[in-house]
Amino acid sequence: MGKLYVVGIGPGSYEDMTLRADRALASADVIVGYSVYVDLVRDRYPGKTFLTTPMTRETDRCRMALDRAVGGETVALVCSGDSGIYGMAGLVLQLRGEAEAPEVEIVPGLTAACSGGALLGAPLTHDFAVISLSDRLTPWETIERRLEAAAVADLTIVLYNPASRGRPDHLRRACEILLRHLPEDRICGIARQIGREGQGKELLTLGELRSADADMFCTVFIGNSSALRLGENLVTPRGYLDV
Amino acid sequence: MGKLYVVGIGPGSYEDMTLRADRALASADVIVGYSVYVDLVRDRYPGKTFLTTPMTRETDRCRMALDRAVGGETVALVCSGDSGIYGMAGLVLQLRGEAEAPEVEIVPGLTAACSGGALLGAPLTHDFAVISLSDRLTPWETIERRLEAAAVADLTIVLYNPASRGRPDHLRRACEILLRHLPEDRICGIARQIGREGQGKELLTLGELRSADADMFCTVFIGNSSALRLGENLVTPRGYLDV
Repeated sequence: MGKLYVVGIGPGSYEDMTLRADRALASADVIVGYSVYVDLVRDRYPGKTFLTTPMTRETDRCRMALDRAVGGETVALVCSGDSGIYGMAGLVLQLRGEAEAPEVEIVPGLTAACSGGALLGAPLTHDFAVISLSDRLTPWETIERRLEAAAVADLTIVLYNPASRGRPDHLRRACEILLRHLPEDRICGIARQIGREGQGKELLTLGELRSADADMFCTVFIGNSSALRLGENLVTPRGYLDV
Repeated sequence: MGKLYVVGIGPGSYEDMTLRADRALASADVIVGYSVYVDLVRDRYPGKTFLTTPMTRETDRCRMALDRAVGGETVALVCSGDSGIYGMAGLVLQLRGEAEAPEVEIVPGLTAACSGGALLGAPLTHDFAVISLSDRLTPWETIERRLEAAAVADLTIVLYNPASRGRPDHLRRACEILLRHLPEDRICGIARQIGREGQGKELLTLGELRSADADMFCTVFIGNSSALRLGENLVTPRGYLDV
């Protein structure tokens, strides 16, 4: 029986990977993942067997990784960001048969809330909510309800999967919901292609965010009521200077 | 003029640090931080100047780090977990005088939502809120309002700073609020001393969590409506197996 590492590789840059993730990939016989993520690590770990599946074939991908581990190999299933936060760790633990189960080690990685926050400045010094705008596995009504609750509770909001080819208007629809409770001039930020070629950031108001250009490689931050722009940075003061 | 790195060192274990954090600490002349966090890295980086301040002296700590960088040194200000999420990155950006400002690089790290989630299994495969139970800089009424909003919106909830010597009953009070909306048998998890000596985990119900033993080195996860126990793990299925 082999071993399966479910590895969060972080945003994409090698230096933002943890030492544990790096060692897990180096120790693996087989590296499995969505093709875009496997391409991020392929050159760094030569001599491995690479197995990729297309974007929406999550169950196939996890089964393939488990099967290879059952067959005796050391396998690394790579996820972008963290392996748990919207990652494959849950599905692997669900699919692992207890009878013939390989050892599974969940290796955490930097999620876009951390890496995108650092790129934008310090938007998450205070309580926050992370909400995905993908309605592939979640009813849109549930997403709406969560957006409203987070806005009313004055949480900073981090939006994952703000848009994709199949749902180009989700970010605009989310902004319309947030604008029922938050002002047009609320400061927001977009982190693009974090740790990858084309990395960039943009600060803008919630009103402007409605028509902003954001794709699936963006992470969007909606400031809370105390968030402010400091030079090129989005910062949520935590109140240390008030006491 | 020197440079200031604001470094998230992750939960505490060297292997869960990113390569960028490791390099920043290795390149520093001076390592500044709360004494408990500096002690986590002290042996790994010999020959540095170490400057520590007690727990609540955040502003002094950041000023000290900035002053040393202004004086020409390379400085690393260490934060546990992420440097932005309840970390010092925001305060540093606020305190940095634009006139005589050293370069500041925010180096993200694994926050307890990521590292504690991996320890417990996969509780964060779906939308979630991160809420601190410390009322040192936040009115308790605001914390209450956020807990209620997150529970009603069926977000998984991650509680940071669930208790400390000065506020031993905050976790119990938070559970009472959550129990207005969530059932007694809702599955929860506690991650203790993540990546440090004494690391451990516990799965329990929300009713049991009310009287659980949790201190400032614990991170608490409250499952959403689909969370379940799989063996020793807390898992939130994301719905891949339903489609």
